[in-house]
Amino acid sequence: MATDGKPTLQHLNNSQSQPILWLLEELEIDYNLNLFERHTSGPKKSRAPDTLKETHPLGKSPQLITPEGRTIIERAAIAYYLIDKYDKTGRFKINPSDSNNDIIREEELISFGNASLYPALMTQLVFDLLRTQSPFFVRPFTGGIASMVNKAFLNHEIAIMIKYLDDQLEGRDYFMGTTEPTRVDFLYMWPIDLGQQSHGSSVDLDKHPRLKQWWARCKARPAWQRAMDKGNGYVFNEY
Amino acid sequence: MATDGKPTLQHLNNSQSQPILWLLEELEIDYNLNLFERHTSGPKKSRAPDTLKETHPLGKSPQLITPEGRTIIERAAIAYYLIDKYDKTGRFKINPSDSNNDIIREEELISFGNASLYPALMTQLVFDLLRTQSPFFVRPFTGGIASMVNKAFLNHEIAIMIKYLDDQLEGRDYFMGTTEPTRVDFLYMWPIDLGQQSHGSSVDLDKHPRLKQWWARCKARPAWQRAMDKGNGYVFNEY
Repeated sequence: MATDGKPTLQHLNNSQSQPILWLLEELEIDYNLNLFERHTSGPKKSRAPDTLKETHPLGKSPQLITPEGRTIIERAAIAYYLIDKYDKTGRFKINPSDSNNDIIREEELISFGNASLYPALMTQLVFDLLRTQSPFFVRPFTGGIASMVNKAFLNHEIAIMIKYLDDQLEGRDYFMGTTEPTRVDFLYMWPIDLGQQSHGSSVDLDKHPRLKQWWARCKARPAWQRAMDKGNGYVFNEY
Repeated sequence: MATDGKPTLQHLNNSQSQPILWLLEELEIDYNLNLFERHTSGPKKSRAPDTLKETHPLGKSPQLITPEGRTIIERAAIAYYLIDKYDKTGRFKINPSDSNNDIIREEELISFGNASLYPALMTQLVFDLLRTQSPFFVRPFTGGIASMVNKAFLNHEIAIMIKYLDDQLEGRDYFMGTTEPTRVDFLYMWPIDLGQQSHGSSVDLDKHPRLKQWWARCKARPAWQRAMDKGNGYVFNEY
Protein backbone atom coordinates (compact mmCIF):
# COMPACT_ATOMS: atom_id res chain seq x y z
CA MET A 1 0.00 0.00 0.00
CA ALA A 2 1.40 3.39 -0.99
CA THR A 3 1.72 5.62 2.05
CA ASP A 4 3.35 8.75 0.60
CA GLY A 5 5.69 9.03 3.58
CA LYS A 6 2.89 9.26 6.12
CA PRO A 7 1.47 6.71 8.55
CA THR A 8 -2.03 5.48 7.71
CA LEU A 9 -4.70 4.63 10.26
CA GLN A 10 -7.26 1.98 9.30
CA HIS A 11 -10.03 3.29 11.51
CA LEU A 12 -13.33 1.59 12.40
CA ASN A 13 -16.30 3.50 13.80
CA ASN A 14 -17.40 2.81 17.39
CA SER A 15 -14.17 0.99 18.20
CA GLN A 16 -10.96 1.12 20.17
CA SER A 17 -9.37 2.89 17.23
CA GLN A 18 -10.75 6.26 18.41
CA PRO A 19 -8.07 6.79 21.13
CA ILE A 20 -5.38 6.11 18.51
CA LEU A 21 -6.90 8.83 16.35
CA TRP A 22 -6.68 11.06 19.44
CA LEU A 23 -2.96 10.28 19.77
CA LEU A 24 -2.37 11.07 16.09
CA GLU A 25 -4.03 14.44 16.61
CA GLU A 26 -1.95 15.11 19.75
CA LEU A 27 1.23 14.43 17.79
CA GLU A 28 0.22 17.03 15.16
CA ILE A 29 1.68 15.01 12.31
CA ASP A 30 0.46 14.39 8.79
CA TYR A 31 -1.29 11.05 8.43
CA ASN A 32 -3.77 9.28 6.19
CA LEU A 33 -7.11 8.27 7.64
CA ASN A 34 -9.12 5.44 6.08
CA LEU A 35 -12.61 5.17 7.58
CA PHE A 36 -14.33 1.78 7.86
CA GLU A 37 -17.89 1.13 9.04
CA ARG A 38 -19.33 -1.76 11.02
CA HIS A 39 -22.12 -3.74 9.40
CA THR A 40 -25.42 -2.20 10.46
CA SER A 41 -27.71 -5.13 9.63
CA GLY A 42 -27.77 -8.77 8.63
CA PRO A 43 -25.97 -11.70 10.23
CA LYS A 44 -22.76 -9.66 10.54
CA LYS A 45 -24.49 -6.78 12.34
CA SER A 46 -21.95 -4.78 14.37
CA ARG A 47 -19.01 -6.75 12.97
CA ALA A 48 -16.07 -5.15 11.18
CA PRO A 49 -16.09 -5.22 7.37
CA ASP A 50 -13.98 -7.82 5.57
CA THR A 51 -12.06 -5.05 3.80
CA LEU A 52 -9.99 -4.67 6.99
CA LYS A 53 -8.54 -8.12 6.22
CA GLU A 54 -6.84 -6.70 3.14
CA THR A 55 -4.16 -5.07 5.29
CA HIS A 56 -3.98 -7.58 8.20
CA PRO A 57 -5.15 -11.20 8.49
CA LEU A 58 -7.01 -10.58 11.77
CA GLY A 59 -9.15 -7.90 10.13
CA LYS A 60 -9.39 -5.78 13.29
CA SER A 61 -9.06 -2.06 13.88
CA PRO A 62 -6.99 -0.09 14.69
CA GLN A 63 -4.28 -0.94 12.21
CA LEU A 64 -1.45 1.49 11.60
CA ILE A 65 0.44 1.20 8.34
CA THR A 66 3.87 2.76 8.61
CA PRO A 67 5.44 4.83 5.81
CA GLU A 68 7.57 1.72 5.12
CA GLY A 69 4.42 -0.38 4.59
CA ARG A 70 4.47 -2.38 7.83
CA THR A 71 1.05 -2.97 9.40
CA ILE A 72 1.05 -2.69 13.20
CA ILE A 73 -1.89 -4.03 15.25
CA GLU A 74 -2.85 -3.67 18.93
CA ARG A 75 -3.29 -0.27 20.57
CA ALA A 76 -0.35 -0.70 22.95
CA ALA A 77 2.05 -1.42 20.07
CA ILE A 78 0.68 1.33 17.82
CA ALA A 79 0.93 3.90 20.61
CA TYR A 80 4.47 2.75 21.40
CA TYR A 81 5.48 3.13 17.76
CA LEU A 82 3.85 6.53 17.24
CA ILE A 83 5.30 8.11 20.39
CA ASP A 84 8.72 6.56 19.85
CA LYS A 85 8.92 7.72 16.25
CA TYR A 86 7.03 11.01 16.14
CA ASP A 87 7.24 12.55 19.61
CA LYS A 88 10.67 14.11 19.13
CA THR A 89 10.46 16.45 22.13
CA GLY A 90 9.36 13.73 24.58
CA ARG A 91 6.14 15.57 25.33
CA PHE A 92 4.14 12.32 25.70
CA LYS A 93 6.89 10.18 27.18
CA ILE A 94 7.30 9.01 30.78
CA ASN A 95 10.29 9.85 32.96
CA PRO A 96 11.80 6.41 33.64
CA SER A 97 14.16 7.77 36.31
CA ASP A 98 11.19 8.81 38.47
CA SER A 99 10.87 5.77 40.72
CA ASN A 100 7.20 6.53 41.42
CA ASN A 101 6.41 6.62 37.70
CA ASP A 102 8.96 4.32 36.07
CA ILE A 103 8.67 1.75 33.31
CA ILE A 104 7.66 -1.00 35.76
CA ARG A 105 4.65 1.04 36.80
CA GLU A 106 3.86 1.77 33.15
CA GLU A 107 4.00 -1.96 32.36
CA GLU A 108 1.79 -2.73 35.38
CA LEU A 109 -0.85 -0.22 34.35
CA ILE A 110 -0.88 -1.22 30.68
CA SER A 111 -1.12 -4.90 31.52
CA PHE A 112 -3.75 -4.26 34.20
CA GLY A 113 -5.92 -2.44 31.66
CA ASN A 114 -5.49 -5.09 28.98
CA ALA A 115 -5.35 -8.36 30.92
CA SER A 116 -7.46 -7.62 34.02
CA LEU A 117 -9.91 -4.75 33.57
CA TYR A 118 -10.77 -5.24 29.90
CA PRO A 119 -11.59 -8.99 30.14
CA ALA A 120 -13.84 -8.26 33.15
CA LEU A 121 -15.65 -5.50 31.24
CA MET A 122 -16.00 -7.70 28.16
CA THR A 123 -17.51 -10.49 30.22
CA GLN A 124 -19.97 -8.05 31.76
CA LEU A 125 -20.85 -6.75 28.31
CA VAL A 126 -21.46 -10.24 26.96
CA PHE A 127 -23.76 -11.02 29.87
CA ASP A 128 -25.63 -7.84 29.17
CA LEU A 129 -26.00 -8.77 25.50
CA LEU A 130 -27.29 -12.13 26.67
CA ARG A 131 -29.89 -10.31 28.71
CA THR A 132 -30.98 -7.82 26.06
CA GLN A 133 -30.44 -9.69 22.78
CA SER A 134 -31.93 -13.08 23.59
CA PRO A 135 -35.23 -14.01 21.93
CA PHE A 136 -38.00 -12.56 24.08
CA PHE A 137 -39.30 -15.94 25.19
CA VAL A 138 -36.03 -16.97 26.89
CA ARG A 139 -35.19 -13.50 28.21
CA PRO A 140 -36.66 -14.13 31.68
CA PHE A 141 -34.14 -16.95 32.04
CA THR A 142 -31.11 -15.34 30.46
CA GLY A 143 -31.76 -12.00 32.14
CA GLY A 144 -31.99 -13.70 35.50
CA ILE A 145 -28.73 -15.52 34.96
CA ALA A 146 -26.95 -12.39 33.78
CA SER A 147 -28.14 -10.48 36.83
CA MET A 148 -27.11 -13.30 39.14
CA VAL A 149 -23.59 -13.51 37.75
CA ASN A 150 -23.22 -9.75 37.76
CA LYS A 151 -24.31 -9.35 41.33
CA ALA A 152 -22.35 -12.28 42.67
CA PHE A 153 -19.04 -11.59 41.08
CA LEU A 154 -18.45 -9.13 38.28
CA ASN A 155 -19.82 -5.96 39.84
CA HIS A 156 -17.70 -6.51 42.92
CA GLU A 157 -14.55 -7.33 40.93
CA ILE A 158 -14.94 -4.35 38.61
CA ALA A 159 -15.66 -1.97 41.50
CA ILE A 160 -12.37 -3.01 43.15
CA MET A 161 -10.50 -2.49 39.90
CA ILE A 162 -11.98 0.96 39.25
CA LYS A 163 -11.19 2.04 42.80
CA TYR A 164 -7.61 0.84 42.27
CA LEU A 165 -7.35 2.97 39.12
CA ASP A 166 -8.78 5.97 40.96
CA ASP A 167 -6.12 5.50 43.66
CA GLN A 168 -3.43 5.44 40.96
CA LEU A 169 -4.38 9.03 40.11
CA GLU A 170 -3.73 10.30 43.64
CA GLY A 171 -1.62 13.43 43.18
CA ARG A 172 -1.38 12.89 39.44
CA ASP A 173 -3.11 14.68 36.54
CA TYR A 174 -2.26 11.79 34.20
CA PHE A 175 -1.51 8.20 35.14
CA MET A 176 2.26 8.46 34.90
CA GLY A 177 2.58 11.70 36.87
CA THR A 178 3.30 13.80 33.79
CA THR A 179 1.78 17.10 32.72
CA GLU A 180 0.67 15.64 29.37
CA PRO A 181 -0.95 12.27 28.62
CA THR A 182 1.35 9.31 27.96
CA ARG A 183 0.74 5.90 26.42
CA VAL A 184 -1.08 4.73 29.57
CA ASP A 185 -3.67 7.50 29.23
CA PHE A 186 -4.18 6.89 25.51
CA LEU A 187 -4.77 3.21 26.28
CA TYR A 188 -7.11 3.67 29.26
CA MET A 189 -9.57 5.88 27.43
CA TRP A 190 -10.96 2.80 25.71
CA PRO A 191 -11.91 0.62 28.73
CA ILE A 192 -13.16 3.65 30.67
CA ASP A 193 -15.37 4.78 27.79
CA LEU A 194 -16.54 1.22 27.17
CA GLY A 195 -17.27 0.68 30.85
CA GLN A 196 -19.34 3.82 31.11
CA GLN A 197 -21.30 3.67 27.89
CA SER A 198 -22.26 0.02 27.93
CA HIS A 199 -25.64 -1.02 29.23
CA GLY A 200 -25.26 -2.99 32.40
CA SER A 201 -21.75 -1.84 33.21
CA SER A 202 -20.86 -1.08 36.79
CA VAL A 203 -18.34 1.67 36.01
CA ASP A 204 -19.72 4.77 37.69
CA LEU A 205 -17.27 7.66 37.59
CA ASP A 206 -19.36 9.73 39.99
CA LYS A 207 -18.06 7.48 42.76
CA HIS A 208 -14.46 7.99 41.65
CA PRO A 209 -13.71 11.72 41.42
CA ARG A 210 -10.04 11.43 40.46
CA LEU A 211 -10.84 9.11 37.59
CA LYS A 212 -13.75 11.32 36.56
CA GLN A 213 -11.50 14.38 36.51
CA TRP A 214 -8.86 12.51 34.50
CA TRP A 215 -11.54 11.49 32.00
CA ALA A 216 -12.85 15.05 31.71
CA ARG A 217 -9.28 16.39 31.42
CA CYS A 218 -8.55 14.11 28.47
CA LYS A 219 -11.88 14.79 26.76
CA ALA A 220 -11.38 18.55 27.06
CA ARG A 221 -8.16 18.44 25.08
CA PRO A 222 -8.47 20.04 21.63
CA ALA A 223 -6.84 16.98 20.04
CA TRP A 224 -9.61 14.73 21.43
CA GLN A 225 -12.21 17.06 19.95
CA ARG A 226 -10.47 17.08 16.57
CA ALA A 227 -10.27 13.28 16.62
CA MET A 228 -14.01 13.09 17.27
CA ASP A 229 -14.64 15.41 14.33
CA LYS A 230 -12.44 13.38 11.97
CA GLY A 231 -13.73 9.95 13.03
CA ASN A 232 -16.98 8.33 12.00
CA GLY A 233 -18.67 7.78 15.36
CA TYR A 234 -17.79 6.49 18.81
CA VAL A 235 -20.73 4.99 20.69
CA PHE A 236 -21.18 1.50 22.13
CA ASN A 237 -24.78 1.38 23.22
CA GLU A 238 -26.40 0.68 19.88
CA TYR A 239 -25.71 -3.03 19.60
CA MET B 1 7.98 -7.43 54.44
CA ALA B 2 11.56 -8.62 55.00
CA THR B 3 12.98 -10.02 51.81
CA ASP B 4 16.60 -10.82 52.78
CA GLY B 5 17.92 -9.47 49.50
CA LYS B 6 15.86 -11.86 47.37
CA PRO B 7 12.69 -11.34 45.35
CA THR B 8 9.60 -13.05 46.75
CA LEU B 9 6.85 -14.62 44.67
CA GLN B 10 3.34 -14.64 46.13
CA HIS B 11 2.16 -17.71 44.27
CA LEU B 12 -1.39 -19.06 43.97
CA ASN B 13 -2.15 -22.63 42.90
CA ASN B 14 -3.90 -23.20 39.57
CA SER B 15 -3.22 -19.67 38.42
CA GLN B 16 -1.30 -17.50 36.00
CA SER B 17 1.49 -17.33 38.56
CA GLN B 18 2.89 -20.69 37.37
CA PRO B 19 4.66 -19.26 34.27
CA ILE B 20 6.31 -16.63 36.51
CA LEU B 21 7.62 -19.46 38.69
CA TRP B 22 8.96 -20.97 35.47
CA LEU B 23 10.79 -17.73 34.66
CA LEU B 24 12.30 -17.59 38.17
CA GLU B 25 13.62 -21.11 37.67
CA GLU B 26 15.03 -20.23 34.23
CA LEU B 27 16.92 -17.30 35.76
CA GLU B 28 18.54 -19.63 38.31
CA ILE B 29 18.42 -17.01 41.06
CA ASP B 30 17.66 -17.28 44.77
CA TYR B 31 14.10 -16.30 45.58
CA ASN B 32 11.47 -16.78 48.25
CA LEU B 33 8.31 -18.66 47.35
CA ASN B 34 5.12 -18.16 49.36
CA LEU B 35 2.42 -20.65 48.39
CA PHE B 36 -1.26 -19.66 48.59
CA GLU B 37 -4.25 -21.92 47.98
CA ARG B 38 -7.62 -21.16 46.42
CA HIS B 39 -10.70 -21.79 48.54
CA THR B 40 -11.89 -25.33 47.88
CA SER B 41 -15.44 -24.99 49.20
CA GLY B 42 -18.02 -22.51 50.44
CA PRO B 43 -19.24 -19.32 48.77
CA LYS B 44 -15.67 -18.34 47.87
CA LYS B 45 -14.94 -21.67 46.17
CA SER B 46 -12.07 -21.31 43.68
CA ARG B 47 -11.38 -17.71 44.76
CA ALA B 48 -8.00 -16.50 46.00
CA PRO B 49 -7.52 -16.22 49.79
CA ASP B 50 -7.79 -12.79 51.42
CA THR B 51 -4.22 -13.13 52.71
CA LEU B 52 -3.05 -12.06 49.25
CA LYS B 53 -4.51 -8.62 50.03
CA GLU B 54 -1.91 -8.11 52.74
CA THR B 55 0.74 -7.38 50.11
CA HIS B 56 -1.40 -5.74 47.39
CA PRO B 57 -4.89 -4.20 47.49
CA LEU B 58 -6.12 -6.19 44.48
CA GLY B 59 -5.30 -9.47 46.22
CA LYS B 60 -4.37 -11.26 43.00
CA SER B 61 -1.49 -13.56 42.13
CA PRO B 62 1.21 -13.42 40.92
CA GLN B 63 2.73 -10.66 43.02
CA LEU B 64 6.47 -10.18 43.07
CA ILE B 65 7.98 -8.38 46.05
CA THR B 66 11.35 -6.94 45.17
CA PRO B 67 14.31 -6.98 47.59
CA GLU B 68 13.52 -3.29 48.18
CA GLY B 69 9.97 -4.17 49.26
CA ARG B 70 8.05 -2.99 46.19
CA THR B 71 5.15 -5.20 45.17
CA ILE B 72 4.80 -5.64 41.41
CA ILE B 73 1.59 -7.05 39.89
CA GLU B 74 0.69 -8.22 36.37
CA ARG B 75 2.67 -10.93 34.60
CA ALA B 76 3.95 -8.62 31.85
CA ALA B 77 5.41 -6.19 34.40
CA ILE B 78 6.87 -8.90 36.64
CA ALA B 79 8.52 -10.63 33.69
CA TYR B 80 9.90 -7.29 32.48
CA TYR B 81 11.37 -6.56 35.90
CA LEU B 82 12.89 -10.01 36.42
CA ILE B 83 14.53 -10.20 33.01
CA ASP B 84 15.73 -6.59 33.15
CA LYS B 85 17.25 -7.00 36.60
CA TYR B 86 18.46 -10.61 36.78
CA ASP B 87 19.23 -11.70 33.21
CA LYS B 88 22.70 -10.18 33.09
CA THR B 89 23.86 -12.10 30.01
CA GLY B 90 20.77 -11.25 27.92
CA ARG B 91 19.90 -14.91 27.53
CA PHE B 92 16.14 -14.24 27.67
CA LYS B 93 16.14 -10.86 25.93
CA ILE B 94 15.04 -10.00 22.41
CA ASN B 95 17.30 -8.51 19.77
CA PRO B 96 15.65 -5.11 19.10
CA SER B 97 17.82 -4.45 16.05
CA ASP B 98 16.33 -7.50 14.28
CA SER B 99 13.56 -5.82 12.29
CA ASN B 100 11.61 -9.09 12.08
CA ASN B 101 11.67 -9.50 15.87
CA ASP B 102 11.90 -6.00 17.26
CA ILE B 103 10.21 -4.29 20.18
CA ILE B 104 7.15 -3.35 18.09
CA ARG B 105 6.54 -7.01 17.34
CA GLU B 106 7.08 -7.84 21.02
CA GLU B 107 4.52 -5.18 22.01
CA GLU B 108 2.07 -6.47 19.40
CA LEU B 109 2.32 -10.05 20.64
CA ILE B 110 2.09 -9.17 24.33
CA SER B 111 -0.91 -6.93 23.77
CA PHE B 112 -2.55 -9.47 21.46
CA GLY B 113 -2.27 -12.13 24.16
CA ASN B 114 -3.56 -9.86 26.92
CA ALA B 115 -6.15 -7.69 25.19
CA SER B 116 -7.45 -9.93 22.37
CA LEU B 117 -6.88 -13.65 22.97
CA TYR B 118 -7.28 -13.71 26.75
CA PRO B 119 -10.63 -11.83 26.88
CA ALA B 120 -12.00 -14.15 24.18
CA LEU B 121 -10.88 -17.23 26.14
CA MET B 122 -12.29 -15.81 29.38
CA THR B 123 -15.65 -15.17 27.72
CA GLN B 124 -15.69 -18.71 26.39
CA LEU B 125 -14.83 -20.02 29.85
CA VAL B 126 -17.63 -18.03 31.47
CA PHE B 127 -20.13 -19.36 28.96
CA ASP B 128 -18.94 -22.84 29.72
CA LEU B 129 -19.37 -22.27 33.44
CA LEU B 130 -22.86 -21.00 32.68
CA ARG B 131 -23.54 -24.27 30.90
CA THR B 132 -22.08 -26.58 33.53
CA GLN B 133 -22.65 -24.71 36.80
CA SER B 134 -26.24 -23.53 36.38
CA PRO B 135 -28.90 -25.20 38.53
CA PHE B 136 -29.97 -28.35 36.67
CA PHE B 137 -33.47 -27.06 35.98
CA VAL B 138 -32.28 -24.08 33.90
CA ARG B 139 -29.35 -25.92 32.29
CA PRO B 140 -31.26 -26.76 29.10
CA PHE B 141 -31.71 -23.03 28.57
CA THR B 142 -28.28 -21.83 29.64
CA GLY B 143 -26.49 -24.68 27.87
CA GLY B 144 -28.35 -23.93 24.69
CA ILE B 145 -27.44 -20.27 24.87
CA ALA B 146 -23.80 -21.02 25.61
CA SER B 147 -23.61 -23.37 22.63
CA MET B 148 -25.32 -20.85 20.39
CA VAL B 149 -22.94 -18.04 21.29
CA ASN B 150 -19.94 -20.33 20.99
CA LYS B 151 -20.89 -21.61 17.59
CA ALA B 152 -21.93 -18.27 16.21
CA PHE B 153 -18.98 -16.22 17.28
CA LEU B 154 -16.40 -17.28 19.82
CA ASN B 155 -15.19 -20.53 18.28
CA HIS B 156 -14.64 -18.79 14.97
CA GLU B 157 -12.88 -15.79 16.55
CA ILE B 158 -10.60 -17.93 18.71
CA ALA B 159 -9.75 -20.24 15.81
CA ILE B 160 -8.58 -17.23 13.78
CA MET B 161 -6.49 -15.98 16.70
CA ILE B 162 -4.84 -19.36 17.31
CA LYS B 163 -4.02 -19.72 13.62
CA TYR B 164 -2.48 -16.26 13.72
CA LEU B 165 -0.27 -17.28 16.65
CA ASP B 166 0.72 -20.48 14.85
CA ASP B 167 1.75 -18.36 11.84
CA GLN B 168 3.87 -16.17 14.13
CA LEU B 169 6.02 -19.23 14.88
CA GLU B 170 6.88 -19.82 11.21
CA GLY B 171 10.65 -20.34 11.16
CA ARG B 172 10.93 -19.56 14.87
CA ASP B 173 11.52 -21.86 17.86
CA TYR B 174 10.30 -19.14 20.23
CA PHE B 175 8.00 -16.23 19.42
CA MET B 176 10.71 -13.61 19.10
CA GLY B 177 13.03 -15.68 16.90
CA THR B 178 15.51 -16.36 19.70
CA THR B 179 17.09 -19.65 20.77
CA GLU B 180 15.76 -19.28 24.34
CA PRO B 181 12.31 -18.15 25.52
CA THR B 182 11.73 -14.42 26.02
CA ARG B 183 9.04 -12.48 27.85
CA VAL B 184 6.53 -13.23 25.08
CA ASP B 185 6.92 -16.98 25.61
CA PHE B 186 6.66 -16.72 29.39
CA LEU B 187 3.44 -14.74 28.95
CA TYR B 188 1.81 -16.95 26.30
CA MET B 189 2.09 -20.14 28.33
CA TRP B 190 -0.87 -18.99 30.43
CA PRO B 191 -3.53 -18.42 27.73
CA ILE B 192 -2.39 -21.49 25.79
CA ASP B 193 -2.62 -23.71 28.89
CA LEU B 194 -5.92 -22.12 29.88
CA GLY B 195 -7.32 -22.53 26.38
CA GLN B 196 -6.42 -26.19 26.22
CA GLN B 197 -7.38 -27.32 29.68
CA SER B 198 -10.71 -25.57 30.01
CA HIS B 199 -13.88 -27.43 29.29
CA GLY B 200 -15.55 -26.03 26.22
CA SER B 201 -12.49 -24.30 24.83
CA SER B 202 -11.84 -24.39 21.13
CA VAL B 203 -8.04 -24.31 21.37
CA ASP B 204 -6.92 -27.53 19.71
CA LEU B 205 -3.15 -27.64 19.28
CA ASP B 206 -3.35 -30.74 17.09
CA LYS B 207 -4.54 -28.45 14.31
CA HIS B 208 -1.62 -26.06 14.86
CA PRO B 209 1.64 -28.01 14.75
CA ARG B 210 3.99 -25.03 15.20
CA LEU B 211 2.17 -23.88 18.31
CA LYS B 212 2.01 -27.45 19.59
CA GLN B 213 5.77 -27.85 19.10
CA TRP B 214 6.43 -24.52 20.84
CA TRP B 215 4.27 -25.64 23.76
CA ALA B 216 6.07 -29.00 24.01
CA ARG B 217 9.45 -27.25 23.69
CA CYS B 218 8.67 -24.99 26.64
CA LYS B 219 7.23 -27.78 28.77
CA ALA B 220 10.30 -29.97 28.17
CA ARG B 221 12.64 -27.39 29.66
CA PRO B 222 14.10 -28.48 33.00
CA ALA B 223 13.16 -25.11 34.52
CA TRP B 224 9.47 -25.74 33.69
CA GLN B 225 9.66 -29.13 35.38
CA ARG B 226 11.31 -27.66 38.49
CA ALA B 227 8.64 -24.94 38.64
CA MET B 228 5.94 -27.60 38.53
CA ASP B 229 7.65 -29.46 41.39
CA LYS B 230 7.95 -26.32 43.52
CA GLY B 231 4.42 -25.03 42.89
CA ASN B 232 1.22 -26.26 44.46
CA GLY B 233 -0.79 -27.36 41.45
CA TYR B 234 -1.64 -26.06 37.98
CA VAL B 235 -4.95 -27.36 36.64
CA PHE B 236 -8.04 -25.42 35.51
CA ASN B 237 -10.68 -28.03 34.96
CA GLU B 238 -11.79 -28.61 38.53
CA TYR B 239 -14.06 -25.61 38.96
